[in-house]
Amino acid sequence: MKIILFGASGTIGSAVEAELKSRHEIIRIGRTSGDRQADITDMAAIERILVEVGPVDALVATTGKVHVGPVDGLTPDLVSVGLKDKLMGQVNLILAGQKYLKDGGSITVTSGIVSDQPVRLLANASLVNGGLEAFVRAAAIELPRGLRVNSVSPSVVLESMEKFAPVFRGFEAVPAKRVALAYSRSVEGNQTGQVYRVW
Amino acid sequence: MKIILFGASGTIGSAVEAELKSRHEIIRIGRTSGDRQADITDMAAIERILVEVGPVDALVATTGKVHVGPVDGLTPDLVSVGLKDKLMGQVNLILAGQKYLKDGGSITVTSGIVSDQPVRLLANASLVNGGLEAFVRAAAIELPRGLRVNSVSPSVVLESMEKFAPVFRGFEAVPAKRVALAYSRSVEGNQTGQVYRVW
Repeated sequence: MKIILFGASGTIGSAVEAELKSRHEIIRIGRTSGDRQADITDMAAIERILVEVGPVDALVATTGKVHVGPVDGLTPDLVSVGLKDKLMGQVNLILAGQKYLKDGGSITVTSGIVSDQPVRLLANASLVNGGLEAFVRAAAIELPRGLRVNSVSPSVVLESMEKFAPVFRGFEAVPAKRVALAYSRSVEGNQTGQVYRVW
Repeated sequence: MKIILFGASGTIGSAVEAELKSRHEIIRIGRTSGDRQADITDMAAIERILVEVGPVDALVATTGKVHVGPVDGLTPDLVSVGLKDKLMGQVNLILAGQKYLKDGGSITVTSGIVSDQPVRLLANASLVNGGLEAFVRAAAIELPRGLRVNSVSPSVVLESMEKFAPVFRGFEAVPAKRVALAYSRSVEGNQTGQVYRVW
């Protein structure tokens, strides 16, 4: 397959590339690195890449910013950080994917455990992940041409524990290599509307 | 208790008022009707009401617009209709409530069945409801002063079936009067971080 990977330089993105590259052609996209550059908050930039690369079999997103901070410090502007970036960025990929993917292609986005299991400081991520997972379920029942869409919901990733251990005490961290398997299940399997929980 | 009800003129709002008014003082808020007027997308308007009415025991929201339409017609702008109104409007109430409510007070917002059980045309509502429910779970573990927050997730309401029956075929419609009980459980009970499913 030919697969476009948005967020290829990140911890999870690198592991996804490592998992898929022996079997598939991967086009790596980053905000500033990779084979091509795009910010997924910019629909025009996404569409430009999809047109230039030509029809592909899969889009995978392992990218997206959220605001990290306590609920008593949240403002509408801080909540919108995650809405505009991790949520709408990945929704943009789903909306663009339905037009540009090959028949039977797939879109795989990234949510995360805090949609179900909240922790301190990540309320913005909870909101974003919960919205994204529900949108995946909804889009899956309408996508045309045999297209599929799934989300991967990792627990805290082992490689990020140096930064996140204090807010994820008691959570079992998962190696990025194990998280990457869920992307393989989504891309190389045949399910749609799923949330693959890696926890 | 003294309760501020945002969206009091709607089908569910009217039923909530009917359920609660014999036991509590209800201040009815509408965009253009009610005892006072506010658009919950406007944080300043919400805060003005909370200051003018003075400390209350509960905020209840039964309001919020979403875009209705197929996924293949969605654009980032159409998705933002629900993000700005039903999602951020109710998030605004939670953020304001944590500052202005009496100790031990509660906030009750409205999501809906399509976060879990998607139907055609309501992908924007799915996203909004899923995000809101996850934010409720996250906010609940951080709210100070014994404050509580819950969401009510109704199935399609019987009184709305004239408009929505075609997209909710096979769903058991629930009378608004029955949905209103869930708001009573949230306001007059003592749980937090719950999604009360009325389906």
